[in-house]
Amino acid sequence: MRKIGVAILGLGVVGGGTYEILAKNREKMQDTYGYDIEVIAVMDKNQERLAELSIPKEAFAKSIMEVAMNPDVHIVVETIGGITIAKEFVTACLECGKTVVTANKEMIAKNFIELHNLARQNNAGLYYEASCVGGTPIIRTIVDSMQGNDIESITGIVNGTTNYILSKMSDEGCSYQDALAQAQALGFAEADPTSDVEGFDSMYKLSILTSLSFNGEVAIDNIKCEGISSIQKEDIAYGKELGYTIKLLAIGKKTPKGIDVRVHPTLIKKKNPLAAVDGAFNGVKIVGDAVGEIMLYGKGAGALPTGSAIVSDILYASKFLESDHYYPTLSKAFKNNKFTFTNDYDCSYYIRLLVADKLGVLGQVGKWLSSEGVSVREIRQKDKNAEGLNTILLTTHETTERKLNNAMEKLKDYQDICKVGAVIRVE
Amino acid sequence: MRKIGVAILGLGVVGGGTYEILAKNREKMQDTYGYDIEVIAVMDKNQERLAELSIPKEAFAKSIMEVAMNPDVHIVVETIGGITIAKEFVTACLECGKTVVTANKEMIAKNFIELHNLARQNNAGLYYEASCVGGTPIIRTIVDSMQGNDIESITGIVNGTTNYILSKMSDEGCSYQDALAQAQALGFAEADPTSDVEGFDSMYKLSILTSLSFNGEVAIDNIKCEGISSIQKEDIAYGKELGYTIKLLAIGKKTPKGIDVRVHPTLIKKKNPLAAVDGAFNGVKIVGDAVGEIMLYGKGAGALPTGSAIVSDILYASKFLESDHYYPTLSKAFKNNKFTFTNDYDCSYYIRLLVADKLGVLGQVGKWLSSEGVSVREIRQKDKNAEGLNTILLTTHETTERKLNNAMEKLKDYQDICKVGAVIRVE
Repeated sequence: MRKIGVAILGLGVVGGGTYEILAKNREKMQDTYGYDIEVIAVMDKNQERLAELSIPKEAFAKSIMEVAMNPDVHIVVETIGGITIAKEFVTACLECGKTVVTANKEMIAKNFIELHNLARQNNAGLYYEASCVGGTPIIRTIVDSMQGNDIESITGIVNGTTNYILSKMSDEGCSYQDALAQAQALGFAEADPTSDVEGFDSMYKLSILTSLSFNGEVAIDNIKCEGISSIQKEDIAYGKELGYTIKLLAIGKKTPKGIDVRVHPTLIKKKNPLAAVDGAFNGVKIVGDAVGEIMLYGKGAGALPTGSAIVSDILYASKFLESDHYYPTLSKAFKNNKFTFTNDYDCSYYIRLLVADKLGVLGQVGKWLSSEGVSVREIRQKDKNAEGLNTILLTTHETTERKLNNAMEKLKDYQDICKVGAVIRVE
Repeated sequence: MRKIGVAILGLGVVGGGTYEILAKNREKMQDTYGYDIEVIAVMDKNQERLAELSIPKEAFAKSIMEVAMNPDVHIVVETIGGITIAKEFVTACLECGKTVVTANKEMIAKNFIELHNLARQNNAGLYYEASCVGGTPIIRTIVDSMQGNDIESITGIVNGTTNYILSKMSDEGCSYQDALAQAQALGFAEADPTSDVEGFDSMYKLSILTSLSFNGEVAIDNIKCEGISSIQKEDIAYGKELGYTIKLLAIGKKTPKGIDVRVHPTLIKKKNPLAAVDGAFNGVKIVGDAVGEIMLYGKGAGALPTGSAIVSDILYASKFLESDHYYPTLSKAFKNNKFTFTNDYDCSYYIRLLVADKLGVLGQVGKWLSSEGVSVREIRQKDKNAEGLNTILLTTHETTERKLNNAMEKLKDYQDICKVGAVIRVE
């Protein structure tokens, strides 16, 4: 039986979960796949984790070169996180010809081409299924199951923390701050939640998924990114009233004007399958010209779901240790695809305005938008607030961001429209 | 560049769709995956299909041996359907060492072990992603993405025809016969719809998916199978009223009593993600001990979705033409897993009764069920029908099929309970 030596760098939640799955399933994987997968080296700042996970002491490596130069290590799992040490260690391992499996979306997204090239030069594999949507096989689906398709779009809820917060706000009517605090208390959000709530985590994942789907580089600089921290609870309630649910969507589309990639809070119709993706779950919809619409749904994070994806990468990579790994960035198609990017996409908007309690204000609102070429789909006047202002909710027909921005700038000409409460995209 | 010669047996809807995807994407697949995939042989009863699909005449093979013995053919796509000729042709090709890609669920389900063994003996691959859930990568997910999991259950809507009919009945309140006629008119159901509506198609798929998921033989004889042809439109309406949607589910579960595998119409709660799988779409939920719950959703049939899965198998198989294909049935784990099967599972039931318009009948119903150990969850009395009988709807708490059957047999002791309108499982 082929023996596969594995090293795990970083024994935190995910690294520890991976160790546990590998240890628990070792015999089953031998009997099913014919590989004897053994963790023979680990690294962690905290040596106590060895005892906690019952890892034999001799597996503890003192330096990355001890791992990278070990001829019995075939596959190195990087679960350190961050991008400084992680990238340094991954680079050292790839340079020594070790196949790398990682859950590190930020490192992959920021070094997509560099790391793939390094892997190829050293005949090593680079696998990162666990970087996107936990144990749900989204990368394998794009690379191994949609090869006969021209992928037209990918739209997903790819961050569990923000989806948990938005679901909480929607279910319980609480504020963003309260929902965030609850998410932090339950371990669904980090002490510094910036990367999640400002959409950066979703942006890294979108960069990886669109680069693979569209078969060309979609660097993070090309992605317009907006988080959820300014979402007000009243807009969630009003959205519901209009038949919408709010989700932080990562969207990548091929359009005649170019590639449109963005992350932002979005109102979606309740019948959209993504509207049912609640709490810490993730969901991704891919549209291909042959297969039509497919959707994958599962837990986006956590020790075991992410560990499950890492273990699946280890077994998948094992098949290719003696043949050819696949390097998407090195294909002729990838190199030839020099994309144009566009922010000039058509989309509807939800707008909440606070207006003076005067006759004819509704008319002013209509005039303001139509004079800028923005057409109103629906308009509703709500009760007066504490400051004596009326609330107007409106949704527009599809328009461009440019037209919408022009309209927002002209707002000062209409003195009875006192304040913009919210502007949220509608898909 | 590696040249891969493909033969297509059967140029019907799916075979033709496959040809079109391969022809359209040939250059893109060369540039992305480094394989030049060319269809160099085809077989079909109807030679006119060659002209319709612009296939060069010299590709037309006169006999299966001409294909099987052609040294330039590496992969044979079987899209004939049925099991007689299809199996004969596939056997001939495997015996000559050709890798086979097929969408034929009945052939695979009925010959799962035989065909895998034949493939292994001849060092040929056998791939059938297209046999289940069209272009949605359900088989790849089980085999290549959940290796570190103990799969606990698989539950799915795996037949688009019946899902279309049930969705139609639910949306429009029409009868089974009317919905079937519409499905036939639109090409969603065949002239003889038996295999779909009686659940056989779902049963074949469940046999394949559970054999792979549970890693042992689940032959179709072990699957309890019930179709949708006796579903009444009033039960769909009453189900809605109680908060349920009706779906034909294929269910495979590991239980302490054994493997529980069955296909039957089922009432599911509206919040169940499978309830949102409408029309010709399919959806499959898999629960693994590490990954938790994941769900895949997509079109279950049609020329292009199925063709997409076949093309993905061709490209996937191409990677293994010179190394080792994977034969699930030959693993030690598969051989060791001799399953016990059980029909003794716990489940709730929806029952519609027609009863005499008399005082105390509701009490009789309660007495009847409780005397058999079946506990009622909810009971509702509806208006009188044309025959002067009252309708009683009830749902039970979880009980076993044995207890329920015993209760149904004792019904004759209660003369005021005149007729059983429907008994439908609730998940």
